[in-house]
Amino acid sequence: MSPLEIENTLRYHLDLLLPQHMTREVYEYATLPGGKLFRPSLVWSTLSDLDPVLYSKSLQNRNSPHALLASAVEFHHSYTLIHDDLPCMDDDTIRRGKPCTHLVYGEWQALLAGDGLLNLSYQLLSKSKHERALEVIRFFSWALGPKGLIQGQVLDLSEEMTKSFENTLRTHELKTARLIQVAILGSAMQTTLKNTKREKSLWKFSKLLGINFQLIDDLSELSEEVLSEHETAVNPWLHHTEQTYLETIKSLDTFNLLSLELKLVNTNKIITEYYQKMVSIITLNQGMIEMHLNKKINLFPVILLMKKFS
Amino acid sequence: MSPLEIENTLRYHLDLLLPQHMTREVYEYATLPGGKLFRPSLVWSTLSDLDPVLYSKSLQNRNSPHALLASAVEFHHSYTLIHDDLPCMDDDTIRRGKPCTHLVYGEWQALLAGDGLLNLSYQLLSKSKHERALEVIRFFSWALGPKGLIQGQVLDLSEEMTKSFENTLRTHELKTARLIQVAILGSAMQTTLKNTKREKSLWKFSKLLGINFQLIDDLSELSEEVLSEHETAVNPWLHHTEQTYLETIKSLDTFNLLSLELKLVNTNKIITEYYQKMVSIITLNQGMIEMHLNKKINLFPVILLMKKFS
Repeated sequence: MSPLEIENTLRYHLDLLLPQHMTREVYEYATLPGGKLFRPSLVWSTLSDLDPVLYSKSLQNRNSPHALLASAVEFHHSYTLIHDDLPCMDDDTIRRGKPCTHLVYGEWQALLAGDGLLNLSYQLLSKSKHERALEVIRFFSWALGPKGLIQGQVLDLSEEMTKSFENTLRTHELKTARLIQVAILGSAMQTTLKNTKREKSLWKFSKLLGINFQLIDDLSELSEEVLSEHETAVNPWLHHTEQTYLETIKSLDTFNLLSLELKLVNTNKIITEYYQKMVSIITLNQGMIEMHLNKKINLFPVILLMKKFS
Repeated sequence: MSPLEIENTLRYHLDLLLPQHMTREVYEYATLPGGKLFRPSLVWSTLSDLDPVLYSKSLQNRNSPHALLASAVEFHHSYTLIHDDLPCMDDDTIRRGKPCTHLVYGEWQALLAGDGLLNLSYQLLSKSKHERALEVIRFFSWALGPKGLIQGQVLDLSEEMTKSFENTLRTHELKTARLIQVAILGSAMQTTLKNTKREKSLWKFSKLLGINFQLIDDLSELSEEVLSEHETAVNPWLHHTEQTYLETIKSLDTFNLLSLELKLVNTNKIITEYYQKMVSIITLNQGMIEMHLNKKINLFPVILLMKKFS
């Protein structure tokens, strides 16, 4: 599924489920054009890897369980971004290269659009005709609710996250990995045949993917000359350099091994693309990164493991 | 179902679904002790009116579809209150006689607890084993999402609401009635036998109940000597006095007639209690209300219609 078609499906659901009112504009501003569309792409790539026949059928139907899940995951992601950017949260100004929603439409419009997208994600899932639709909602709400993603946001914003490296990893698992797990495992749950053993492997695969995604993202953030206050306060590469370094290598390595077992060709393509982008950012800015780290660490093994993937 | 038992069920689900972390306290502060518990009481009263056998069975089971719906409705209501009270929304300081959640725990904790309760309401609904569980989620998300309750909040906070009396009514329908409709109709949807005709009547009944609830509430707000800026800006009794007066009488009258048809004995008891409370507030403060209205209007017919109910 191409990013363009993923976006067209998002637009289709916005047209269908939103009032034709000026607030329609707020939702569209906050969701389109999408960013990397990493999460909805994973929904589709997982389906195409596990069930190519169902994938072909689902492509044509914007209300197929997978089209609904892909849109729900992306709308849910957008709501977390809107709320994260609010002044009382991270107080950000730029998102995806444009001013944050609350700066353009005001805080209450941004807050309510976030709430609206949150509801919308469940509305989409409830339209699924898959026999496991209710189970998917149960998983989705558990993974992204107060014990999941939201607890990750709490750990991030409170002093908890940086207190120990374990807390950092837990934060990354909850705040970043859970939504990626919902995309991959939610997609697997809605294939034609139920395969519990495969679902267990995918749980581990998607959890590691999410954690790696965030650890590498943290590293690439150090490419900037000036770091934000929040970044300086929470980036684990600055506070637990040695542990973060070792964990990243271990985690990338385990992930590569697991990926060889699972053979998810299309999913691996998406991850490879992401890694390639990160490798080039990190290689290009190695000097700046090392300056922030205040010591010479050998980034070569990290880069090698990303290059070796798939 | 007694208010105490409704609260115990809320506490049971908080214990089950929240991390044992300091944020547990934020959720509890925002939800317990509950207010009137008007909405979850309506879930139970509707069930006891329509299906007494299932009601008896459901009472003992905190994971029965109706126990889950009652808790979901109340948690969802609590999330809207937390977000409504935030500085960027109504900027309130007192809720249910105590300082608002954001004043005690800070804005980001309040925002995230609201998001958490929103997710939690869907998590509860997804645990239902009722064959129409998915349909209930679909109705719930439609009624409370961007085309429902949230659109009501948008109309309330923007200039739209007061532009015409029609907008006021639409705001009351979306912001107040929808959640009451979810309580009553959601409950009816989960009885043993499906009865589409009855559901249609209940749709109308609950919509009128919600609108009356808000119109009478607006009237009772005028009992205060000093009105808040927001109240002064949006109270329809101040801006469309004649129309609001006539609509209230018409709407109460239609509701009384519909209620005679439906014969919901236990539900009517709850509404009667609410009306009695409102009648006493309005009677006691008639002078103050008339002062705010800046003209003599005869409140007797309004009071009489509430007294005549059931």
